[in-house]
Amino acid sequence: MVIDVAVIGAAGYAGAELVRRLVEHPKFNLKVITSDSDAGKPLAELYPAFTGLSDLEFLSHNAPEVKQCAAAFLAVPHKAAMAMVPGLLEAGVAVFDLSADYRLKDAEIYTQWYGVEHTSPELLEQCAFGLPELFRKDLNKVASNRLNRKPALVACAGCYPTATSLAAFPAVDAGWVQAPVYVQAISGVTGAGRSANERTHFCHANENAEAYGVATHRHTPEIEQILGLPGGVLFIPHLAPLSRGLLSTVTMRLTAEAAANFNLQAAHKHYVDFYEKAPFVQVMPLGVQPQTRNVAGSNYAQVGLAYDARTQTLVATGAIDNLCKGAANQAIQCANIVFGLDETTGLEHMANPV
Amino acid sequence: MVIDVAVIGAAGYAGAELVRRLVEHPKFNLKVITSDSDAGKPLAELYPAFTGLSDLEFLSHNAPEVKQCAAAFLAVPHKAAMAMVPGLLEAGVAVFDLSADYRLKDAEIYTQWYGVEHTSPELLEQCAFGLPELFRKDLNKVASNRLNRKPALVACAGCYPTATSLAAFPAVDAGWVQAPVYVQAISGVTGAGRSANERTHFCHANENAEAYGVATHRHTPEIEQILGLPGGVLFIPHLAPLSRGLLSTVTMRLTAEAAANFNLQAAHKHYVDFYEKAPFVQVMPLGVQPQTRNVAGSNYAQVGLAYDARTQTLVATGAIDNLCKGAANQAIQCANIVFGLDETTGLEHMANPV
Amino acid sequence: MVIDVAVIGAAGYAGAELVRRLVEHPKFNLKVITSDSDAGKPLAELYPAFTGLSDLEFLSHNAPEVKQCAAAFLAVPHKAAMAMVPGLLEAGVAVFDLSADYRLKDAEIYTQWYGVEHTSPELLEQCAFGLPELFRKDLNKVASNRLNRKPALVACAGCYPTATSLAAFPAVDAGWVQAPVYVQAISGVTGAGRSANERTHFCHANENAEAYGVATHRHTPEIEQILGLPGGVLFIPHLAPLSRGLLSTVTMRLTAEAAANFNLQAAHKHYVDFYEKAPFVQVMPLGVQPQTRNVAGSNYAQVGLAYDARTQTLVATGAIDNLCKGAANQAIQCANIVFGLDETTGLEHMANPV
Amino acid sequence: MVIDVAVIGAAGYAGAELVRRLVEHPKFNLKVITSDSDAGKPLAELYPAFTGLSDLEFLSHNAPEVKQCAAAFLAVPHKAAMAMVPGLLEAGVAVFDLSADYRLKDAEIYTQWYGVEHTSPELLEQCAFGLPELFRKDLNKVASNRLNRKPALVACAGCYPTATSLAAFPAVDAGWVQAPVYVQAISGVTGAGRSANERTHFCHANENAEAYGVATHRHTPEIEQILGLPGGVLFIPHLAPLSRGLLSTVTMRLTAEAAANFNLQAAHKHYVDFYEKAPFVQVMPLGVQPQTRNVAGSNYAQVGLAYDARTQTLVATGAIDNLCKGAANQAIQCANIVFGLDETTGLEHMANPV
Repeated sequence: MVIDVAVIGAAGYAGAELVRRLVEHPKFNLKVITSDSDAGKPLAELYPAFTGLSDLEFLSHNAPEVKQCAAAFLAVPHKAAMAMVPGLLEAGVAVFDLSADYRLKDAEIYTQWYGVEHTSPELLEQCAFGLPELFRKDLNKVASNRLNRKPALVACAGCYPTATSLAAFPAVDAGWVQAPVYVQAISGVTGAGRSANERTHFCHANENAEAYGVATHRHTPEIEQILGLPGGVLFIPHLAPLSRGLLSTVTMRLTAEAAANFNLQAAHKHYVDFYEKAPFVQVMPLGVQPQTRNVAGSNYAQVGLAYDARTQTLVATGAIDNLCKGAANQAIQCANIVFGLDETTGLEHMANPV
Repeated sequence: MVIDVAVIGAAGYAGAELVRRLVEHPKFNLKVITSDSDAGKPLAELYPAFTGLSDLEFLSHNAPEVKQCAAAFLAVPHKAAMAMVPGLLEAGVAVFDLSADYRLKDAEIYTQWYGVEHTSPELLEQCAFGLPELFRKDLNKVASNRLNRKPALVACAGCYPTATSLAAFPAVDAGWVQAPVYVQAISGVTGAGRSANERTHFCHANENAEAYGVATHRHTPEIEQILGLPGGVLFIPHLAPLSRGLLSTVTMRLTAEAAANFNLQAAHKHYVDFYEKAPFVQVMPLGVQPQTRNVAGSNYAQVGLAYDARTQTLVATGAIDNLCKGAANQAIQCANIVFGLDETTGLEHMANPV
Repeated sequence: MVIDVAVIGAAGYAGAELVRRLVEHPKFNLKVITSDSDAGKPLAELYPAFTGLSDLEFLSHNAPEVKQCAAAFLAVPHKAAMAMVPGLLEAGVAVFDLSADYRLKDAEIYTQWYGVEHTSPELLEQCAFGLPELFRKDLNKVASNRLNRKPALVACAGCYPTATSLAAFPAVDAGWVQAPVYVQAISGVTGAGRSANERTHFCHANENAEAYGVATHRHTPEIEQILGLPGGVLFIPHLAPLSRGLLSTVTMRLTAEAAANFNLQAAHKHYVDFYEKAPFVQVMPLGVQPQTRNVAGSNYAQVGLAYDARTQTLVATGAIDNLCKGAANQAIQCANIVFGLDETTGLEHMANPV
Repeated sequence: MVIDVAVIGAAGYAGAELVRRLVEHPKFNLKVITSDSDAGKPLAELYPAFTGLSDLEFLSHNAPEVKQCAAAFLAVPHKAAMAMVPGLLEAGVAVFDLSADYRLKDAEIYTQWYGVEHTSPELLEQCAFGLPELFRKDLNKVASNRLNRKPALVACAGCYPTATSLAAFPAVDAGWVQAPVYVQAISGVTGAGRSANERTHFCHANENAEAYGVATHRHTPEIEQILGLPGGVLFIPHLAPLSRGLLSTVTMRLTAEAAANFNLQAAHKHYVDFYEKAPFVQVMPLGVQPQTRNVAGSNYAQVGLAYDARTQTLVATGAIDNLCKGAANQAIQCANIVFGLDETTGLEHMANPV
């Protein structure tokens, strides 16, 4: 069985990563790639790594071929996504949306942080949040929807929320933690996308570290939703001079009760058990911290733990490739599940060890 | 008047930075540079940027020329420093120690974190902590000691404590903050020193971000001492792929009282006023974050502020060049003060704008 | 059929890359990895990207398990390789040697450039040079040797010779070129290996470009042998601040006759035809230059052409990943051929497009 | 005496570097900075390293204050420069033009390579070529023009021509070399300017090496003019992932006669003698290659030599900071000479040793 799929918004970085993985995917057949501004151009012109390896050309977003696919991966900006999704679902296409449009369950919070009204709030409840390690049941439900010819929509998790939640969720979920939770993260520059501007200029980002969007970054409510801590997360992203990679360092003060009985080995075992059936999560041994280079180019996430008894604070760190586990590969992982494939299909490769 | 000075431990990174600044300093005359392992070699052999610009050669640490100098900058590891300092002071040499040996006022805390007994604890009280913006009075006292032929010793602040304290002190000092204070910092690789090992290998550090020394880094008690928060600081350093630069992001939860009345503009004004007479501190306008590239290669520090009303948390960020304001240049700034020079002498240059 | 293989010298960078590819290879079963200095350690301790993905532990080089394998990949230094190869061949193990020991057909030239006597010169003639695009026949002969239980030895091409020859060979082979040929190449730092030293220190290599080994680099005679230009190649390598990637720029002055009739489109077509059956060579369209990022992490090589009529000089450029097509993956490509597999087996993945 | 100066086109990278050096210059008083697109903005808004250090604001290019200055540094694109220069000269302003407009002495060659007619060819002969180490006499003549109230115009050398000529000129000038001369250079990304585009995007340039403008780069005729080798230079620039730094590697085949008598020590001595009175040229000892990091941020140039007897080829390498010796600082060096100052005034600082 071959499953035809489309990538809408294939010219951006997440789009290109999707294309690359889908070109090599053994079950999905990448039939259509779209980019309104590059329609008619060969893929290899924009991304010369594809020279001789793919004859795909960009179509425009509304090309009729899109709706002939079984699934569409949407890598367009927020707002643009919600303009397309209802039509695709109506046409029976399963949608894996990499934008933020369907991630927040509460349309009011969406409006608060994104500054626009949601145009299809009725879809928010039924869509699955695309972070399989934490919301597998929802994905299974979408899989069943698809089989029953109901709308199948997955709102894939953002990059920062993915790394942060994989690191923090088992502790928060266990009730060990008191709010506020502080999240400090470092992202590579691919996170800022393909658009060339002052911040993505090599000579700005190189040999530089800076915080940005302090306390105002839109991934804040998404992290709060996942962790179940409304108003309880302060998120501070930083930019550092690497292309791919995202490291989230979460400081979580324990409740007095949790602190009184805290044992780091036991906490670590809780994490190991929690991720026992998650093929892409590598819980690091105590004393070893995750490194972004260990997961770059792959769908793996590394999670590490440390504890400071002096301040009764648990420090959980999560490392991912923002374009892979933080975007494209995670969307494919979701699609694998929704289409009944092994979730690792086409995603088995690890990072370069060096 | 020309003041002869020595750099002891001139082969390391902080040492080389000292040498470079002292070679160009208009008042200090760099007479001696030492390195036991490189004794006899020309400076330009180790650091070819000096080719044709300096004829200095490394002597060994115990070369008699050292004690003929008016001042010595010590850039040797902790423990090695305290083995040399008393002898130098006795010889009437003013000492600017870049190691950690005399930074902590409490010898027991020193032993706790550094694992060795302090061999000259009697010097701890009288030595000045070398962070002029916060401890100018102590430096003035050492200046007066020197004139009165008493021992003149300055324990120059560490790199992380410098950036962190410049960012956090005005808020903590104003009583706005409740412990614990969380410090997350990103350092360039020069911070790890000249020794070639797995962590400083280009192919490890490049395209990588990682936390290290979580909750165990030795700069923790130093930060606590400066801020007056014993046991109240959790410090989490990270390594990122840049050579020079250190960014410290400090999250400080406000007391209920402070939060009730908090006004970010007023807080910002407090910072501007606090640093009014500090020529090397650049308080950034609200909405603009410090960047390490803005201060690289210079003695400047940039400090920025943001506030998250949702979690009642003040976020202060501080950017420095770890080898300059975080080590060599700050030591020269201290020496300028101790020798009665304008504190900016030889340190006026700013960072490359690009 | 599963083919047991060993990686000898698996702790170095080329070794680790071999391990990673072989762990994921569908036909070769990586049974043994060795490292004398790391014997007993788990692979994941040295290379934490393998955490949870492989239970392999390092054995010592002389572990008996090695000789139970059908093939061994040797990633040890020159001299160490020739001490092991005869014994392995005798035990019936097919050997893919990544060192330089068996690359040069003339033992005297070997001694001249490597400063040691060759200890098994009798193997030089019969071993294949492992650069499939140019020496496929030799590899086929080794494949036949193996089937006939004769010694099967492949001396895999060096990284610089691979990129350089793929770019230059079709032109030299066509008789267009007069000596000397000038080769200027840029290598990433993985090319300098895992050993931590002054040159591989992040703070040396970062923000730096330098030439090294000018006119004395040992890959010179290897390039001359491949191109059939003894004494006719000047090779100048450079180090630049990237981890993986090697770009070779070859300037070839045309003979008067070739220049008189030169047509760039025709030359380009000659290249396209030459590599028609080479699945890993991407001949770039005229006007598009190879980029190392286009091939990083993959076994692909990009080749580009330009012509300067003013100086009658053809400029051919070749880009590879020095650890992949320049080392580990090319060795696996050779092994695929020798073991009768499709040469792309386990090597199909392309570079990250971004 | 204070000399008022202007920087026209101060918002670009070379402009910002000029501003920074002139702000710190002890004799020149930076009175005016211009940028048509940023008129009205404070300097520190574009380049936050200036926060608190300079109150300068951008004016528009035609602000009357410009013509009240004694000198203007032009850092605008070619064509824009020649539209301004005659008016400035007429107003009695000494002009230091960083564009290419007045570098080529032959207006036809200018048109050939730049695709436009020269609009003030009458100035080409009388203007000085701004590369003091090779054309000091011309600069002295402009100095004398200025004193005699005649037009004073300097066409500052390009970045590639500067590094290349400093490396190659002494050998070519001595008659040792036969054409063609091959120049392969590596430039940092600041060389591509401040404009944000695909090539200057961090994620394009990072972890990448590529050739560009092969045989078509406009610095080719400039190098030929300096070396006196019309049609005899093939120039191949490369982009590598560093911000500042330019390394030019020049391969020069010796004439049969020169080769017959060639002695590398003697050649090296020739270079040392040639640059004896050049304070900014560091001729490296034989066996030591220039590194861009050794000169980054400074006006120094490092030159190195090696010889390949096998191909009778001399390899000269030159390293500069493309924005400093390759642009802004060199222009100031020229201005120092024209205004009768010591040529090192304001430019004495060396590179960071680390």
